[in-house]
Amino acid sequence: MNEENILLQFGKHVKELRQQKNLSQEQLALIADLDRTYISGIERGKRNVSLLNLFKIAKSLNIPAYEVISFDLGGNDE
Amino acid sequence: MNEENILLQFGKHVKELRQQKNLSQEQLALIADLDRTYISGIERGKRNVSLLNLFKIAKSLNIPAYEVISFDLGGNDE
Repeated sequence: MNEENILLQFGKHVKELRQQKNLSQEQLALIADLDRTYISGIERGKRNVSLLNLFKIAKSLNIPAYEVISFDLGGNDE
Repeated sequence: MNEENILLQFGKHVKELRQQKNLSQEQLALIADLDRTYISGIERGKRNVSLLNLFKIAKSLNIPAYEVISFDLGGNDE
């Protein structure tokens, strides 16, 4: 399991979802009650987010939690 | 957001998925390279699992990661 790749692809996916909702990192952070630098770190694949923060982000984006981790690992993983 | 409820429902779901695969907590822990007490804690709603451990559990159960967090919050949450 390529952990770095999982975090990177997850981060890309969160960024895409956020941009689809026309939210800035600051806005998402404010709605989710998380720090802006934490959101930035997630999007750069630097943070191993917890289940509860994953639910906070999903709720803030108004999507089900499973959608936040429905992303393609790009063939670098199985 | 009822955090306790999310962890409890998540734990119930992991337990169901594990039992569907006829695995003991010990067996799942061994395959996932996690501690048996950690799996037990998850199933009792006591652990706020990280994204990478969520992927480890999913891979060990041979299911996509999003399925591990596809569960019903039981009307106690939105």
